[in-house]
Amino acid sequence: MKLIKLLVFLLCVVHAGAQTPNLMPLPAKYTQGGKNFHIRTSFKIEVEGEADERIYREASRFYQRIAERTGIFFKSWIVNASSKLSGKGLLIRIKAKGVLALGVDESYSLRVEENQVLLLANTDIGAIRGLETLVQMVDSDQEGYFFKGMVIEDEPRFSWRGLLVSQPYHFMPMDVIKRTIDAMAAVKMNVLHFYISDDQGYRIESKVFPRLHEMASDGMYFTHAQVKEMVQYADQRGIRVVPEIDVPGHSTAIIYAYPHLASIKREYELQDHWGVFDPTLDPTKPSTYTFLDSLLTEVASLFPDTYFHIGGDENTGRDWKRNPAIQSFMKENGLTTTLALQNYFNRKVQTILQKNGKIAIGWDEVLMKEVDAKTAKQHFLDGQFDKLIETNVPKDMVIQSWRGMEALLSSAKNGYKSILSKGFYIDLVQPASYHYLNDPIPFRNEVIVPDSEANFDRFESDIIKKIQQGEKLLTQEEEKLILGGEATMWTEHVSAETFDSRVWPRTAVIAERLWSPAEIRNVKDMYRRMDIVSVQLESLGLTHIKNREMLLRRLLGSDDVGSLSNVVQYLEPVQGYKRNRANNFTRFSPYSLMVDIAVPDQKAVRTVTNLFTSGNGINESEKLNQVEMLLRQWMVDAKKVQLDINQKPALKDFLPHAISLEKIAVVGLNFINSYRSGGKINGFWDKEKEAIFNTAAKEHGYCELKVVEPLRRFILDLQDK
Amino acid sequence: MKLIKLLVFLLCVVHAGAQTPNLMPLPAKYTQGGKNFHIRTSFKIEVEGEADERIYREASRFYQRIAERTGIFFKSWIVNASSKLSGKGLLIRIKAKGVLALGVDESYSLRVEENQVLLLANTDIGAIRGLETLVQMVDSDQEGYFFKGMVIEDEPRFSWRGLLVSQPYHFMPMDVIKRTIDAMAAVKMNVLHFYISDDQGYRIESKVFPRLHEMASDGMYFTHAQVKEMVQYADQRGIRVVPEIDVPGHSTAIIYAYPHLASIKREYELQDHWGVFDPTLDPTKPSTYTFLDSLLTEVASLFPDTYFHIGGDENTGRDWKRNPAIQSFMKENGLTTTLALQNYFNRKVQTILQKNGKIAIGWDEVLMKEVDAKTAKQHFLDGQFDKLIETNVPKDMVIQSWRGMEALLSSAKNGYKSILSKGFYIDLVQPASYHYLNDPIPFRNEVIVPDSEANFDRFESDIIKKIQQGEKLLTQEEEKLILGGEATMWTEHVSAETFDSRVWPRTAVIAERLWSPAEIRNVKDMYRRMDIVSVQLESLGLTHIKNREMLLRRLLGSDDVGSLSNVVQYLEPVQGYKRNRANNFTRFSPYSLMVDIAVPDQKAVRTVTNLFTSGNGINESEKLNQVEMLLRQWMVDAKKVQLDINQKPALKDFLPHAISLEKIAVVGLNFINSYRSGGKINGFWDKEKEAIFNTAAKEHGYCELKVVEPLRRFILDLQDK
Repeated sequence: MKLIKLLVFLLCVVHAGAQTPNLMPLPAKYTQGGKNFHIRTSFKIEVEGEADERIYREASRFYQRIAERTGIFFKSWIVNASSKLSGKGLLIRIKAKGVLALGVDESYSLRVEENQVLLLANTDIGAIRGLETLVQMVDSDQEGYFFKGMVIEDEPRFSWRGLLVSQPYHFMPMDVIKRTIDAMAAVKMNVLHFYISDDQGYRIESKVFPRLHEMASDGMYFTHAQVKEMVQYADQRGIRVVPEIDVPGHSTAIIYAYPHLASIKREYELQDHWGVFDPTLDPTKPSTYTFLDSLLTEVASLFPDTYFHIGGDENTGRDWKRNPAIQSFMKENGLTTTLALQNYFNRKVQTILQKNGKIAIGWDEVLMKEVDAKTAKQHFLDGQFDKLIETNVPKDMVIQSWRGMEALLSSAKNGYKSILSKGFYIDLVQPASYHYLNDPIPFRNEVIVPDSEANFDRFESDIIKKIQQGEKLLTQEEEKLILGGEATMWTEHVSAETFDSRVWPRTAVIAERLWSPAEIRNVKDMYRRMDIVSVQLESLGLTHIKNREMLLRRLLGSDDVGSLSNVVQYLEPVQGYKRNRANNFTRFSPYSLMVDIAVPDQKAVRTVTNLFTSGNGINESEKLNQVEMLLRQWMVDAKKVQLDINQKPALKDFLPHAISLEKIAVVGLNFINSYRSGGKINGFWDKEKEAIFNTAAKEHGYCELKVVEPLRRFILDLQDK
Repeated sequence: MKLIKLLVFLLCVVHAGAQTPNLMPLPAKYTQGGKNFHIRTSFKIEVEGEADERIYREASRFYQRIAERTGIFFKSWIVNASSKLSGKGLLIRIKAKGVLALGVDESYSLRVEENQVLLLANTDIGAIRGLETLVQMVDSDQEGYFFKGMVIEDEPRFSWRGLLVSQPYHFMPMDVIKRTIDAMAAVKMNVLHFYISDDQGYRIESKVFPRLHEMASDGMYFTHAQVKEMVQYADQRGIRVVPEIDVPGHSTAIIYAYPHLASIKREYELQDHWGVFDPTLDPTKPSTYTFLDSLLTEVASLFPDTYFHIGGDENTGRDWKRNPAIQSFMKENGLTTTLALQNYFNRKVQTILQKNGKIAIGWDEVLMKEVDAKTAKQHFLDGQFDKLIETNVPKDMVIQSWRGMEALLSSAKNGYKSILSKGFYIDLVQPASYHYLNDPIPFRNEVIVPDSEANFDRFESDIIKKIQQGEKLLTQEEEKLILGGEATMWTEHVSAETFDSRVWPRTAVIAERLWSPAEIRNVKDMYRRMDIVSVQLESLGLTHIKNREMLLRRLLGSDDVGSLSNVVQYLEPVQGYKRNRANNFTRFSPYSLMVDIAVPDQKAVRTVTNLFTSGNGINESEKLNQVEMLLRQWMVDAKKVQLDINQKPALKDFLPHAISLEKIAVVGLNFINSYRSGGKINGFWDKEKEAIFNTAAKEHGYCELKVVEPLRRFILDLQDK
């Protein structure tokens, strides 16, 4: 008995000590070890069992992806029903054809042995997930390439693992969408939420209402053929595409093309700026529903998935209050709030969707009742969750929660299915770690403190308190109603050139949150694996790494961008909605400047911070040498950048940061000199230095220099030692 | 009189001394000087005169392109018929709508003054060419951005300025094609030659013969909707799209899908390898023409341009000789050679095209008679050009000359229009200077010695001799029959990832050859401008610069590719057809290795060569310092690359080059040491060093290390001084 306990203990230690595999998302269960499978030119792939065409195409693409990384000239390169294993190879065994829909079986198991790789799955979609794992498992030594010996049993924690891409603000053309789909597949995401319509544009062709794309797209939209192409491309990778037509608010584009739908008669233009606007469809006129019936039926026919998003967010209600006829209508129908009127509208729209065999999704406003904060809190404390929501909201409506835990909890307590997006807003350029720890079921795990920009916080702090007190807020059945989550890429502040660097690699860690067990939440290890996957994602055509220097070359007009590149890797865009303050950005303004070249959560910042941090495994003298070399490089780069700016005014945002970088480097070098020579360092950090660092830490051009604080801490730590 | 002569002389000196503007292609006429036009946020654009929609869209795109380079937040950003100049701006005055066709008026004039930019053109297509010039004219100083004061009168020398993109070997998807079109427009090219069918694949959808794309494309083809999208995209930029269906040879893909068309009954498969193969359509069966009638009519309907390419090259004739029925047919019809039979076939095909309102183009085999070299030479010397060509070739057939001056001369002397491609084969990775000096009318200018791989040289040396003797081989009228030229990008040895770096920036100098006056041929200045334009082309999405490090990151599996990148910029792929020797490359083999990352005519090689060359404007001691620093960097990079290779076998091609780079750097550093210390350097260069450099100059992995010879010359020059 004791011996067994000891063995178990030892095994656990071994496991804890072993590095996690270089996979993202990490599989549900895995055992590393055993002999590796060496990849040779004779490598073969066979598919057994009844399979959809998908798996043959993906298996053939697998050959290409391995070949381009390893340089191996395979003798076979196409997998079809007649492909047979003769010698060593990959055997894929599938039980049945997968029907791409919510809840399809995506599980698989993978066994890498010396003579065979065995991939078992209930469906071809599970097998595709397994192939992506195998692509990430390619490793090498001096002898050649191999799949590491390992046994994996894997399945997703959540069935809805999405990414929203909005098209109205900045249009993302087909090549961006296709490589986004490829990258999603690589990290096992399975829903592309395709956001079509907003105040700034309407982005797919409409044959029933052609003025939509003719007037409200600046010529940038997907034709029906292109929508079909996108849906097919996604289906091939086991990814559903869910469209959204946002109504009744966020509808300036629709109203601009068809003004009779408006709640208020006025001159309409497409919005050039970003924000929340008043134009709203008139929910009281039958003609509105006639229009929506035709339009939604057309759109529904283009997207085969069962789910259809109707928006419902951020309706200011002002245009409804301004129109006396709408006010009378509300009275007649006993609708006391604009949200209640919207609920009436939603039910009508839902009927249209039902007729088309669709299930509606809405942002959390479609469910939540308009009650004041105090009442809301009391209902929560009383456990009267039914009083927090509108009555008559159809039970199959899915709630996409973007404003926080209140809506997520209320929908689950009232039996509604939901999807979490709060905390997954990747457009807000927050660190990967923040998104990584944002659990769709926070009601039982450790709680993540919501970010400061929460716009809906009536009793969230009470929720957090209860969880911290150990209270279990959801039953197991209620937890099951939380289908998963969606990263949201609202494209206000990106162009097709910078889209990728805002989405990747951070979205990969959201993918892991939604796929892997809740217990997998080691941030340091996450970053280690994210950096590896980031380079792999590039192979799919993503531009998140390579466009940095491209954008710099454009501004400089030459390829001599080494120093600019070194400096920009220390700059990060301001987080949250801070970039909206100036309100000078529009659909047409340039998104090609410093803040667009800087990316969130820079790897170089993490590397430098690690060097500056005490106890990173090297001795002090060696560390001082490394820091000194780094600071000297900063001085060279900062000076060169200042010269660059001289001739290219478009680089002017760099100026304060370049000057700061030089100044703090000088302080750092002086400090090292004093420290080495045994000089007086106790009083080194004086007011002057404090001022230099405080100035350097300031935001300029919507960016912050992220190496200021690590260097400050480095100096203060040594000084106080 | 004397004073005027002096003035003219002085003006010429000034002109010779002034730098050419940073434009490519250079305009026909230009005068630099005058005040600059400063670009402000209030910059406006107005279009006067009757214009096609094209110009409004291009003018709106112009705003975006200027904004992204300058960071200017323009107050206007869309140009339409109601856009008016209020203050300073660009006035575009157009006489008439341009009809996109061969010979459309593309001339324009451009006058940049302090208060206005005036762009005059006879057609909107001319105006679009002028806008591209203006994009290249953006300049800056500390104050801001401006268009340089200048007056330009411009028109093309040739009306046919094309780029062939072949789809069968490696498929180039829509995004590659679109950015290629953008880049073509940027350097004023006007024909995309879209090569659809060959032994390795058939790349557009066919509704009349669906087995073509279903069986012969591996799922990679353009749908009808996509062809339409491409043609529209090109039209918007004033670029015609000319399709090619290559028959009767190069037709394995067609025969694989429809075997009854073959000249010989056998098992057919798509070709995986590259080369010239026997499968050929049977020209004697009526069913062949029934098939071609339906197919060509379908394809013709997708491409609105008047011209249609029917191939006709490299028919081995072997399958026709193997089939007794075809042999009998030839006898019955008095056809003594396979080329004569092909001529019979061509006339039938031409009738089909004529019915569709199309004019046929063929490679030069469609015109040239099969006569032996001695006879051909005698005909030439006798001036009997009519005896060099087949009889009955329709006079409106256009000849695309790919094998050399013989066909080009023969077609012009016999009254056929022609297009030159010999010397513009950019897939052969030759230096830009070679293509730049390749004049489509060599019959009056200095002669370019054809490259050694000419495969059709029966009396070319005699042509050259005559030109060198000052003989004028073509009349002015005959010269006019030479419509222009086409760069050809045969995609055997590229992927979608490496396509751009094979095409750009070198194709820009071909564009200049075809647009600018023949007298503009200064190679040094061409390279100066090509390097500038290369960076500008990147803004259109081209990957020719940014994919270098992306491909290295993939092979290394990390972003630490600085040394690899430094080394690969000194490597150039072997030129011509040398890569075909091994015959191990196929449609599916990896095109992601060292030879694919190395690019032709590397800028770094030119820079290093310049440093090593005597008399580059710095004193000897400074030069020695610079060379020493460079060689030390080589040693660092070479060592790091050798470490990289250790873990990543896919990098193994680098090994001999990295070792060589290190060894020659050591020799160079030793030499500099001796030279500086006044040591014995006369005997420095011995057999051992000679052997090191000879080994280093050798080809490995289809690449050559291009800094070996410059360093050798540097050492020998100083030693012998």
